[in-house]
Amino acid sequence: MFTLNPQSKRPIKQQLYTQLRTAILSTQLSAGEKLPPSRTLAEDLGISRNSVLAAYEQLTAEGYLVSRKGSGTFVADAVTAPPQGRHTPDASITITPSAYSRQITRTVPPALFQRSNKAGLAVDFAYGEPAYEDLPMETWARVVGSCARRLNQEHLGYGPHCGHNTLRRAIALYLARARGVHCHPEQVVIVQGTQEAIDLCVRLLVDNGDTVVLEDPHYRGFRRCLLAAQADIRAIAVDRDGIQTKKLNTVVGAKLACLTPSHQFPTGAVLPLQRRMAVLEWAAHNNTVILEDDYDGEFRYGQSPIPSLQSLDKHNSVIYVGTSSKIFFPALRIGWMVVPRPLLAPLTALKAMADIWPSTLEQLAFAKFINAGHLERHLLRARRRLAGKRQVLISELNHHLGHRIRINNSQAGIHLLLHLPTLKAEQIPELVEHCAANGTGVYPAAPFYRQQPPEPGLILGYASLNETQITTGVRHLAQALKAVAG
Amino acid sequence: MFTLNPQSKRPIKQQLYTQLRTAILSTQLSAGEKLPPSRTLAEDLGISRNSVLAAYEQLTAEGYLVSRKGSGTFVADAVTAPPQGRHTPDASITITPSAYSRQITRTVPPALFQRSNKAGLAVDFAYGEPAYEDLPMETWARVVGSCARRLNQEHLGYGPHCGHNTLRRAIALYLARARGVHCHPEQVVIVQGTQEAIDLCVRLLVDNGDTVVLEDPHYRGFRRCLLAAQADIRAIAVDRDGIQTKKLNTVVGAKLACLTPSHQFPTGAVLPLQRRMAVLEWAAHNNTVILEDDYDGEFRYGQSPIPSLQSLDKHNSVIYVGTSSKIFFPALRIGWMVVPRPLLAPLTALKAMADIWPSTLEQLAFAKFINAGHLERHLLRARRRLAGKRQVLISELNHHLGHRIRINNSQAGIHLLLHLPTLKAEQIPELVEHCAANGTGVYPAAPFYRQQPPEPGLILGYASLNETQITTGVRHLAQALKAVAG
Repeated sequence: MFTLNPQSKRPIKQQLYTQLRTAILSTQLSAGEKLPPSRTLAEDLGISRNSVLAAYEQLTAEGYLVSRKGSGTFVADAVTAPPQGRHTPDASITITPSAYSRQITRTVPPALFQRSNKAGLAVDFAYGEPAYEDLPMETWARVVGSCARRLNQEHLGYGPHCGHNTLRRAIALYLARARGVHCHPEQVVIVQGTQEAIDLCVRLLVDNGDTVVLEDPHYRGFRRCLLAAQADIRAIAVDRDGIQTKKLNTVVGAKLACLTPSHQFPTGAVLPLQRRMAVLEWAAHNNTVILEDDYDGEFRYGQSPIPSLQSLDKHNSVIYVGTSSKIFFPALRIGWMVVPRPLLAPLTALKAMADIWPSTLEQLAFAKFINAGHLERHLLRARRRLAGKRQVLISELNHHLGHRIRINNSQAGIHLLLHLPTLKAEQIPELVEHCAANGTGVYPAAPFYRQQPPEPGLILGYASLNETQITTGVRHLAQALKAVAG
Repeated sequence: MFTLNPQSKRPIKQQLYTQLRTAILSTQLSAGEKLPPSRTLAEDLGISRNSVLAAYEQLTAEGYLVSRKGSGTFVADAVTAPPQGRHTPDASITITPSAYSRQITRTVPPALFQRSNKAGLAVDFAYGEPAYEDLPMETWARVVGSCARRLNQEHLGYGPHCGHNTLRRAIALYLARARGVHCHPEQVVIVQGTQEAIDLCVRLLVDNGDTVVLEDPHYRGFRRCLLAAQADIRAIAVDRDGIQTKKLNTVVGAKLACLTPSHQFPTGAVLPLQRRMAVLEWAAHNNTVILEDDYDGEFRYGQSPIPSLQSLDKHNSVIYVGTSSKIFFPALRIGWMVVPRPLLAPLTALKAMADIWPSTLEQLAFAKFINAGHLERHLLRARRRLAGKRQVLISELNHHLGHRIRINNSQAGIHLLLHLPTLKAEQIPELVEHCAANGTGVYPAAPFYRQQPPEPGLILGYASLNETQITTGVRHLAQALKAVAG
């Protein structure tokens, strides 16, 4: 019954253990059956009695065997008398996800949580990809490597829930220089990215039925979280200067307002100072917390970045959120929240419950990367390159499609919202397909609107493309538009 | 009024922009005031007119200035006419966190989410720290460095919500070898650690009022999430063989059961096979999902690890959860869930909303580390070392405190639950203080119980201590016990 191999690296007792266990589970040895005494089995198999005893002991500890004093060792009852259906592999239990989870699954169509398949696209205007070839990856690898070699006991255990102090300090100083954000490093909370920041804010502030302001159109990550929380969403329309503050003033008692003032997503509008002041005044009047999503505020071309809402706020009403995914690369999951002090304690408690704290190595490396000036040197170069790409994109669009399009050229960001007033909404899928057939990926703007957009449009991300690709892509778009619109 | 420095690295237009902005915000230039024409100002300052135009343009774009055709450039109204109270720094808005967040803050005393201050403790029996000096950190740094140098475009963008396929495959194979877990890599979901897995499970399955089973005593991370979700918690008492399945059978229709079968936390009990089968049968009968927290299942001394619940389950009822923090180190925030297929779609949707996906570099590095056999070689050594430490701890405890203590010696794990039946519960704080005065940190077991534990006890983590420290610590504990109990 047993095949033991003394030449194997596995100890004899292990081999015997495994084979006995298999015999029990397969009912070769049945419930209640008595095993041979250890001395007998050892002699039969030509192995030491200790090996048999060890295997019996282990199986007894695990409940496969029972040892009855004076009468010997037996196969346990429970093991080989499975309840009805135990071994039918398809007799799964019926799992009902929570109402909360069902709400999430319902509002997120499967296509939205799988990225599109880019194979076969020579030019992909997908939004959110950085300019890969411009990234200082050698420097990054050097910094990471040096931090990895220096990981010592101090850095291997648990750390503070809100992130490593080294990184919080580096981010606070960087934000003061780059975005005019005023804060103490204590107010900086390190997260996995903008989406985690949004999820935390909604959990922190929004109960079922609470009023929340959303721009329309908007980043879908906001909407997902708000629908899951069953918030009462007030979508306020955006014009070429961003959120319409007159309309905003009609909303009373909102708990939260999710805004993208630096570069409205996806229209690209830059909120002017007057509207910024009006938004802050409205928030102060209503005790509303503003979530300022500054996802690409660093990318302004030809003009200095506009001061963040946080830097203008005098009422502790702004949670400022930023991310490394646009200014560095998406696979580095580091984002930051700058939080009014009264929210620090509840946020820390929530963070402790949600994921305890972020991974150390990349935090230390990113802090070093910022403090050594690598990030800002990279941004200086990136801004120049992106401005050039944007210029090419706009002039190609104007040249090939001038009379069929409208662009909000805010000289900012890493994407463009292209309005196509001569098309009907239902013609957009055909346009997208036509482009794809030529190897160019373009993406409809409609999913970013709560209702149908006033005119159909496309979102064109250009950061990861070179100028030749942009030119080719626009030519394909022009051909497609001609074919579709006639 | 303006001090421009042509020698500065900052362009003149930038200097002028900043100074004009400051003048406006400080009301040196007041609302409605007319600025000098650009040509005049340029001449006054001895700079190019383009610099002045650029500064004016930027300030106009930001709303600090308005330009009226034919009449010139003026300071905007909104800027210097702040609404009442704008500049009072302490006029903060009143922020009311969500009921959900208030529940979290209420149930998590501040002390629980800040780690204790270890300064001054020569011997710290804190739970959860690994054996730092045994960690193969040079190998890890080499693997991380090599992955960092190989990061290319493929690895810099967004990845799948559930983690990198390389790591999911490596974990699936590792779990099959080490823990008998049967799964397809698709079922492996990479998370930030056990706590994120728990939070996701609770969000996924538990609505307000749903019945959930908890062991008593238990890991507090479970309780936090369940209290936040306002679950109806059924705490089932644990005896020396783990959760009492007879009591479990009285619970009907639970949505979730949070269990630690390999090594009950914190008692150290190992659930025997009969009880495992009974738990699975109960779950199948009730359509209950089991969250199997296998936080240190790899650490069994002298005997093979016991098969996980997941490996015995035939009804797709087990979510298996593991973490790198005990088998490697806590600062590496990588954990894994093995999920029944029916839960993959809702979990993916939730994960996409919660934090989109985990950071790439450490995932790739950990996969490489596992696939090269480094993890299992480390575990082999670590197990040997930890068994020795455990042996020293137990014999020292028996030698110095033999008649005053009771230990569940399950020959597993990286901590010990020490029962002190001769003490009263209210004497524990005095005992802890006495030890601390001698430089030894010990931790009460009571916080891990729902109600008062049947007898007072301490949790002693020993992995990060050497044998001399363990001996010293036990001597201090014996002195303290003598002093307190008399």
